[in-house]
Amino acid sequence: MEPEGRFSVARVANAWYVACASRELREKPLPRTILGTAIVLFRTGGGSPAALLDRCAHRNAPLSLGRTIRGELRCAYHGWRYDGAGACVEVPGLIGEAEKSARSVPRFAARERDGYIWIYPEANAEPAGEPFRLPPVTGGYTEVRRTVEVEGTLHAALENALDVPHTAFLHKGLFRGAGAKQRIRVRVTRAADRVEAEYIGEPRPEGIAGKMLSPSGGVVTHFDRFILPSIAQVEYRLGAENHFLITTLCTPVEDFRTRLNAVILFRTRFPGWLVRLLIEPVARRIFNQDAAMLKRQTEAARRFGGEHFTSTEIDVLGLQIWQLLKRAERGEPPAEEWRREFEMEA
Amino acid sequence: MEPEGRFSVARVANAWYVACASRELREKPLPRTILGTAIVLFRTGGGSPAALLDRCAHRNAPLSLGRTIRGELRCAYHGWRYDGAGACVEVPGLIGEAEKSARSVPRFAARERDGYIWIYPEANAEPAGEPFRLPPVTGGYTEVRRTVEVEGTLHAALENALDVPHTAFLHKGLFRGAGAKQRIRVRVTRAADRVEAEYIGEPRPEGIAGKMLSPSGGVVTHFDRFILPSIAQVEYRLGAENHFLITTLCTPVEDFRTRLNAVILFRTRFPGWLVRLLIEPVARRIFNQDAAMLKRQTEAARRFGGEHFTSTEIDVLGLQIWQLLKRAERGEPPAEEWRREFEMEA
Amino acid sequence: MEPEGRFSVARVANAWYVACASRELREKPLPRTILGTAIVLFRTGGGSPAALLDRCAHRNAPLSLGRTIRGELRCAYHGWRYDGAGACVEVPGLIGEAEKSARSVPRFAARERDGYIWIYPEANAEPAGEPFRLPPVTGGYTEVRRTVEVEGTLHAALENALDVPHTAFLHKGLFRGAGAKQRIRVRVTRAADRVEAEYIGEPRPEGIAGKMLSPSGGVVTHFDRFILPSIAQVEYRLGAENHFLITTLCTPVEDFRTRLNAVILFRTRFPGWLVRLLIEPVARRIFNQDAAMLKRQTEAARRFGGEHFTSTEIDVLGLQIWQLLKRAERGEPPAEEWRREFEMEA
Repeated sequence: MEPEGRFSVARVANAWYVACASRELREKPLPRTILGTAIVLFRTGGGSPAALLDRCAHRNAPLSLGRTIRGELRCAYHGWRYDGAGACVEVPGLIGEAEKSARSVPRFAARERDGYIWIYPEANAEPAGEPFRLPPVTGGYTEVRRTVEVEGTLHAALENALDVPHTAFLHKGLFRGAGAKQRIRVRVTRAADRVEAEYIGEPRPEGIAGKMLSPSGGVVTHFDRFILPSIAQVEYRLGAENHFLITTLCTPVEDFRTRLNAVILFRTRFPGWLVRLLIEPVARRIFNQDAAMLKRQTEAARRFGGEHFTSTEIDVLGLQIWQLLKRAERGEPPAEEWRREFEMEA
Repeated sequence: MEPEGRFSVARVANAWYVACASRELREKPLPRTILGTAIVLFRTGGGSPAALLDRCAHRNAPLSLGRTIRGELRCAYHGWRYDGAGACVEVPGLIGEAEKSARSVPRFAARERDGYIWIYPEANAEPAGEPFRLPPVTGGYTEVRRTVEVEGTLHAALENALDVPHTAFLHKGLFRGAGAKQRIRVRVTRAADRVEAEYIGEPRPEGIAGKMLSPSGGVVTHFDRFILPSIAQVEYRLGAENHFLITTLCTPVEDFRTRLNAVILFRTRFPGWLVRLLIEPVARRIFNQDAAMLKRQTEAARRFGGEHFTSTEIDVLGLQIWQLLKRAERGEPPAEEWRREFEMEA
Repeated sequence: MEPEGRFSVARVANAWYVACASRELREKPLPRTILGTAIVLFRTGGGSPAALLDRCAHRNAPLSLGRTIRGELRCAYHGWRYDGAGACVEVPGLIGEAEKSARSVPRFAARERDGYIWIYPEANAEPAGEPFRLPPVTGGYTEVRRTVEVEGTLHAALENALDVPHTAFLHKGLFRGAGAKQRIRVRVTRAADRVEAEYIGEPRPEGIAGKMLSPSGGVVTHFDRFILPSIAQVEYRLGAENHFLITTLCTPVEDFRTRLNAVILFRTRFPGWLVRLLIEPVARRIFNQDAAMLKRQTEAARRFGGEHFTSTEIDVLGLQIWQLLKRAERGEPPAEEWRREFEMEA
């Protein structure tokens, strides 16, 4: 039972979302839920991904219980067979033509890009545009990927991923420390499909992660970006040597469940394998702390029958993300562009 | 929360259903649910079964927590005592007459027949007719009984029990094999309270079960029958020697939960005890596969907010069962009789 | 999903309820639910208890996940800090004044009395009156405290705590035995905020507990009292030596969940420690039996979509408790006073 109050739920269906990593989709059909819709993924004869509604047209058995036979999907219950476009190509036992429109199942556009399978969760639709392209892993860079599922709305997950103040409390000691605060400038730039915050004059972060980033200190360049419909990107530079780019591809599984596919790309003066060894346990801990808090936040909002949020100036991107999501959900024209600046302590 | 879409739920209350096996009802009162109604069974002084609403008239404690005392049922909370007709015959502590209509609980007609206790789940009603009689176990026949509960509607369980095509996929290798298909004729006969399919020209089933049925092959006579309100019957003959009659007495526990009491009666050229040894593990596996699929089918239908089924000619009995159930639920006159024939592959 | 039928749920918010024992509230903030409202308790600088809505004004994280810092409560997510009155006194990172009315959280009056923390669960309200005072532990008396949570309405728990007839069945052998019954007089007195039953001519209870109460028999004085909004009190005297006073402070956690804080005060001719040793296992068993039955009673009522109770004269206090609770819930003037007498068997 869904409570009746207000929740930060936006459902943008005409967009691409990561369904799984490429290596997760092999011989066996794979069930995935996007925006509450149960979808089955499989590979067609040529190996390219296909996606259908995970429900046999006959007796509604989940097609993901079935098998892929020469690039087609056979239901486990009565053996109805479907091609990659959702057409029924066999009804075992039936004499005559199997294919009929009433026997087909809705299909979803699918793409394989950058090691992920992307799905466009609007049934039988021609996608507008192509999936977001990940930055390439060029010389000197190392990439780490990590997927976690959180019990929270897409909006809550995005705001959390791009929020600065919580790092000093929820991730105390790991990321931003409790050292003396100083004033920094924040420049927020909103464009048609994105909003970006630049933090100017930020000191090198204290704590374990900060010390790993740059043992010698140095000036920090720090951007937080949201790109429609579901990309959160955090970019850090420390001098010319250190560069961290964390791109989180969010997938709205259900209204209160979001899957985060984080791609951490970095270059430092240390060997990539070493930094990776150091980063992974810290990243895991940060993700776990965020996931636990998002779960408790969601429980509280549901228990109280809705969200009752209060914001201040330093909730830098949350409201902008929300406005962009709602515009996209309603199919409104791109948001106007603007820039503003203010100060906060960090 | 029940989804709002369409579900194949029919509730025929003015009919007899198996509540339990005779041997399950002893000294202790036994709780059972039929058509969503909580019922308590117990044995009266003479040993005959009685059934009351499982709710004390006083403070609504389940009477099934209580005890049977000399053929009457005493509530475990305050000790109110009821006879087999649901009349309150004692209120401990109260001075004066205990019996009053407001203190009685609704009763249900109960019968003990063929090793089962049958209940008529319409409260305080006089039954129209008597329970279905099981075929007697005559010379040369062996009987095996088995009860399973499945998460599916009565209709889904009945259709599954009488469906031929799924056996080649869901029960692959156990029942019908993947051998070369051949055309067979199907003759469907609908009568007032039943519908029957006769499969003409069917080859001996392949697979383990088939080989057990008749090692030497032979012509098969095969009938599938539905008898109102909840009997599924499958009959096989191979020549003069082998005869299998599987009668499944279904009980609608709740809308999406059905209890199947299967009575397997058979005669072969082998000793009964030996065939029984071979049949039991195969039957258990078939039941488990059906139960697992019905559960997944139900989950999918509920998740999608309703059933979206498509049928073909070879869904031989499903639609007929549904029409008969709905007629009975609405109290409409018996269905017209007809016969039709068509071909399928098996 | 809450069923739609009638349930004995009364919600009296303008009253004091025990939230926890004094010793349970230390350094860590403590979450408690009263009348369905999530409340966080903590100790302010001086050590006195404070209670706020358990929801940060910022992003609704439960404040009970946070920490008490010098008598103020800091949220674990972004570090917002609140004083004991619910005012926001710090928003980390924000330049300028933190305190604003939109950033405060509702507070609840709290008192520490007799080893319990009491909460007045009406947000931001001035309490009418003070918490119920427990009888003092004077010379020769021993006190035992015990807290249990039951799945039942406040009304069901109160009626159960003050009901005589069920003790002979649910607690058979422990409390009242199955010995020969005799007639006793019951005098019921209703006053503005309470109702009391006096049992006159009651024999010494049979069973283990009865024998412990008074090995030599003797005349029993027995009162059962309900005091608004949630106090159940049972008082027994056997001659001049033995005196038992069981005061149960009930807290309505949610509509179908009630917390019982029982304070058992007694004086006998035996040493207190010895009686305590004998009483504790018996009391535990009685509480467990009552909790199990209340749970089953609640399940039955919810399953059947509401309560369908029938009462008799010997349901002495249940209806009176209900009327007093409903008057209090509706804010009606105190109930009229009266006295009546009748007979029952015990």
